[in-house]
Amino acid sequence: MNHPIETRERFPWLFEVATRWADNDVYGHVNNAAYYSFFDTAVNRFLIDHGVLDVTGSEAIGVVVETGCSYRKSIAFPDLLDVGVRVARIGNSSVRYELAIFRRGDPEAVATGHFVHVYVDRKSREPVTVPQAVRAALAPLVVSAS
Amino acid sequence: MNHPIETRERFPWLFEVATRWADNDVYGHVNNAAYYSFFDTAVNRFLIDHGVLDVTGSEAIGVVVETGCSYRKSIAFPDLLDVGVRVARIGNSSVRYELAIFRRGDPEAVATGHFVHVYVDRKSREPVTVPQAVRAALAPLVVSAS
Amino acid sequence: MNHPIETRERFPWLFEVATRWADNDVYGHVNNAAYYSFFDTAVNRFLIDHGVLDVTGSEAIGVVVETGCSYRKSIAFPDLLDVGVRVARIGNSSVRYELAIFRRGDPEAVATGHFVHVYVDRKSREPVTVPQAVRAALAPLVVSAS
Amino acid sequence: MNHPIETRERFPWLFEVATRWADNDVYGHVNNAAYYSFFDTAVNRFLIDHGVLDVTGSEAIGVVVETGCSYRKSIAFPDLLDVGVRVARIGNSSVRYELAIFRRGDPEAVATGHFVHVYVDRKSREPVTVPQAVRAALAPLVVSAS
Repeated sequence: MNHPIETRERFPWLFEVATRWADNDVYGHVNNAAYYSFFDTAVNRFLIDHGVLDVTGSEAIGVVVETGCSYRKSIAFPDLLDVGVRVARIGNSSVRYELAIFRRGDPEAVATGHFVHVYVDRKSREPVTVPQAVRAALAPLVVSAS
Repeated sequence: MNHPIETRERFPWLFEVATRWADNDVYGHVNNAAYYSFFDTAVNRFLIDHGVLDVTGSEAIGVVVETGCSYRKSIAFPDLLDVGVRVARIGNSSVRYELAIFRRGDPEAVATGHFVHVYVDRKSREPVTVPQAVRAALAPLVVSAS
Repeated sequence: MNHPIETRERFPWLFEVATRWADNDVYGHVNNAAYYSFFDTAVNRFLIDHGVLDVTGSEAIGVVVETGCSYRKSIAFPDLLDVGVRVARIGNSSVRYELAIFRRGDPEAVATGHFVHVYVDRKSREPVTVPQAVRAALAPLVVSAS
Repeated sequence: MNHPIETRERFPWLFEVATRWADNDVYGHVNNAAYYSFFDTAVNRFLIDHGVLDVTGSEAIGVVVETGCSYRKSIAFPDLLDVGVRVARIGNSSVRYELAIFRRGDPEAVATGHFVHVYVDRKSREPVTVPQAVRAALAPLVVSAS
């Protein structure tokens, strides 16, 4: 895993996330696991806002098969954050997202990561093709290899 | 515990909270414990924004001794929420907050609760008087008994 | 809300819960919201282990309508805990649980609380009668008014 | 990131973790971020139990600079889990842990991941050498390159 320093302009979509009191751990900064909560909130919010995910209804749903994160600087409640989202690759049944966390007012990402969805049938949980509507919604997020 | 239906105008301060993907539980709505995370985020954010809480530095800190919540309607990611905050009572060493959760656009609270801080010395954890600066900051939030 | 000091023998069922690193907040003890996560884990685990809750299949499910907690002493990761569970009342459609958190080796509860389930139809979310199988499973947990 | 299927015997230390109700997300399985909470609980518990981490007192503390996880099979509350822990590399100031999540009774890991601590001075947050006591405690967890 090799996550270079990222800047906002490399992400077609930025999503605001506010930290919470309970995100901080005993060392006084946001716990490593909380970043993944920011990632899946941003990705799923994009899909919902663009009408291609109905959390309780969609037949094809994205389940997470791989995630990763590199942490460059710490953040802490009450920091306001922007999560940058881009799509690195859409395969037959998978979508690879690349993400970055920015602190409000800081041009360089404090953390960068990735998040891979595999689309499965909600009931059988067998892989399916990424739905056409999802591909269309994600098209503006696709960037050439970083 | 008796929490009547609450409306926004009964809260001097409203604080926006965005739900997260992981707040939802298996039944498809926000888990009961997450509401308390909204409460302590709102209360501590008020204290920090008004300059009376330095999370890693303040000598006197508020520790939680009692909380409660009544849930009227369910909420679910990606709902946007407002947390209403008022102060019901400031004692010698304690502050009793009353809170309500509103879904954006809904005049009636989906949940109401309370949250009691006792101020203690950060090191000894012995109760201390609520600092004068905290009392001053909270004054606009104090309402007559509901 | 009036939660007296509780001891283990007042709870017919004790359920072990291990704290996690992320339960601790910046003040170095378990965050107030995490206690509720211990409560719903204990209650639902009892129901599942006794065969009266199928998380994805049961037609009647318990949704939480009220919770509360009084915190007497702080706890911190890596404390091992026991959650005491008893049933204070089973109504037509509701069950009121009373709970307490014990630190391993400490006879007095560090926190006490309550948790009220209302049974609803999974699809319509309309209240239903507490299923007979649930009543039977809970019978050994029912105690006379505390 | 390339995480092969792992089995229990490849991990010198196994640590039991019980899932919680709130770990499950709306799709009915444990949320991807929760796995990281299992990882940091296991690693820090090892360090605490072996006397080389005093959460509020140690001068040198490990902060997380990189994490990753591959998810092979889903898990769900109330699954009981074992977290396998080994050390892949101890550098001058960093420790790379490799971890795996096993469902009780299943020989193959449901998820595998890694977790990198950099030791820093608690106050300055500048990197320091991994303390000798930590190196000694971790020695039994060091395995040759996988």
